Amino acid sequence: MNGNAAYGKKSFKRSRSHFADRITADGRDGWPVEAGRYRLVVSYACPWASRSLVVRRLLGLEDALSLAVADPIQDDRSWRFTLDEDGRDPVLGIRYLSEAYDARETGYPGGVSVPAIVDVPSGRLVTNDYQQITLDLETEWTALHRPGAPDLYPEPLRDEIDTVMADVYRDVNNGVYRAGFATSQEAYEEAYRDLFGRLDALSDRLRDRRYLVGDTITEADVRLFTTLVRFDAVYHGHFKCNRNKLTEDPVLWAYARDLYQTPGFGDTVDFDHIKRHYYLVHSGINPTGIVPLGPDPAGWLTPHGRERLGGRPFGDGTPPAPR
Amino acid sequence: MNGNAAYGKKSFKRSRSHFADRITADGRDGWPVEAGRYRLVVSYACPWASRSLVVRRLLGLEDALSLAVADPIQDDRSWRFTLDEDGRDPVLGIRYLSEAYDARETGYPGGVSVPAIVDVPSGRLVTNDYQQITLDLETEWTALHRPGAPDLYPEPLRDEIDTVMADVYRDVNNGVYRAGFATSQEAYEEAYRDLFGRLDALSDRLRDRRYLVGDTITEADVRLFTTLVRFDAVYHGHFKCNRNKLTEDPVLWAYARDLYQTPGFGDTVDFDHIKRHYYLVHSGINPTGIVPLGPDPAGWLTPHGRERLGGRPFGDGTPPAPR
Repeated sequence: MNGNAAYGKKSFKRSRSHFADRITADGRDGWPVEAGRYRLVVSYACPWASRSLVVRRLLGLEDALSLAVADPIQDDRSWRFTLDEDGRDPVLGIRYLSEAYDARETGYPGGVSVPAIVDVPSGRLVTNDYQQITLDLETEWTALHRPGAPDLYPEPLRDEIDTVMADVYRDVNNGVYRAGFATSQEAYEEAYRDLFGRLDALSDRLRDRRYLVGDTITEADVRLFTTLVRFDAVYHGHFKCNRNKLTEDPVLWAYARDLYQTPGFGDTVDFDHIKRHYYLVHSGINPTGIVPLGPDPAGWLTPHGRERLGGRPFGDGTPPAPR
Repeated sequence: MNGNAAYGKKSFKRSRSHFADRITADGRDGWPVEAGRYRLVVSYACPWASRSLVVRRLLGLEDALSLAVADPIQDDRSWRFTLDEDGRDPVLGIRYLSEAYDARETGYPGGVSVPAIVDVPSGRLVTNDYQQITLDLETEWTALHRPGAPDLYPEPLRDEIDTVMADVYRDVNNGVYRAGFATSQEAYEEAYRDLFGRLDALSDRLRDRRYLVGDTITEADVRLFTTLVRFDAVYHGHFKCNRNKLTEDPVLWAYARDLYQTPGFGDTVDFDHIKRHYYLVHSGINPTGIVPLGPDPAGWLTPHGRERLGGRPFGDGTPPAPR
């Protein structure tokens, strides 16, 4: 999630990640997978960062890849560690995530975004490539996965997963931002129609199958989940994605609850951080800075009934231990 | 509905109506009831004005009291007749409602609000007293009611009606504005809690009875209806009254649909005017001026099942003719 939304244009355009080095098993970019060497920086508010939170939990990478949590409210220097003692990340020793960006590239003019992975020994940013980070956790960090970790990006299904994720990215993950950050009625309406058209198609797809691809949880589910879990809390009202609430689509609402109640999903969600971030940071949309009290999140824990569809959530693996 | 919302204070305070002359059967304020003499000025956007639209229809006063409809979007001179040819009300001959205020009191410094009743011969405003106008249509204009007009303010039930309406006014009719126009989190949260506390109590009250007071439609139902019909379209998102949508309260949602489907209620509602007014005029809340496409209003016409509760909608009277 970027500190500087591109409000200037009529249609919102998301910046590409600037730092796209990869942490790999063979270390070909100079960053080999290594337990304890890297630090994942997230905000609980951010759907892109939350993907990596879910995947890290599902794969049992908590000990191998430590976690820094930024304050949900950025200031003019962007993401900061004001939730930590003395406002400093205890491992990296920095107050602002931008310091790791600066250590990597002096005078980098772009936005500071989460998720970010920082090399602890040098303090340098390695990657802020939100589209690649989780895929690498799944396919390159395998030596450090917990016993029983699921395969979230199974080789035989990758084409289908990639196709589904591309549609979900364009119309849903980024679609809610296109609607919310539109500065013309026309751009908003186009995003709204793409979004609900895609949600209707996903609802059809998920009516008789428990997960998006195959019969197990995959990266595609992780990516859809992090948008759906924010839908009624922020996208419905704040971003005007209000044809209906998630709770009014019986299929998608049950699907989202099923995932929420699966270890590794709901336990990474913080509605307080989510709501405060969106409603307080986007002053161009919500100048009063009032944070809505609703909606009531209690519904997330109600029975979803999706077990009847079968599926094997973790495939041949097992769920992560309770947090 | 006032052109100038009191944004300056932390808690929203609604202005009292300044012009409180009454049009009565005996003409004691100088304004006798007379067919064709007065013109009712409304906006379809405004819940206070919409009360008088509903009551005028239910009582069959359309021929006796003519109607001017203002553009839902005020400019800096407030309500205007830009929907009419040449931007001029064809009966009063004025471009702005403020001209009728000026004719009544030169240099009047307060806000210009609807509903307003204007004396056609002199062009002078008679009253903008939104709390009294409908009561007078019901009790003073009886000689001009249609045959079969219902008694919307029956004498034996007035105490109970007044009590219910006072609670509904404070927590619901005006409560949504207190939430939406709050400029502190504290003021917002207080209004939100009062609002949903009251809606819960009303939902309990209406579970086993078809209407709020007695077994027929009364002024109390009219006043609750004009807020409920706007709830999901504007108050839920724009005013952050988002614990739940109206559609998520089965009792209130069925009650509101029952009224909506009763001749005289739904046929006075214009969701386009409602949404454009709130989202375009309140630039302090919605600076982008984007008007949401949702929610889908189709649900208003679905069966409500409230007939099983009995009740006699029009008492000893009859419904108005279809519009």
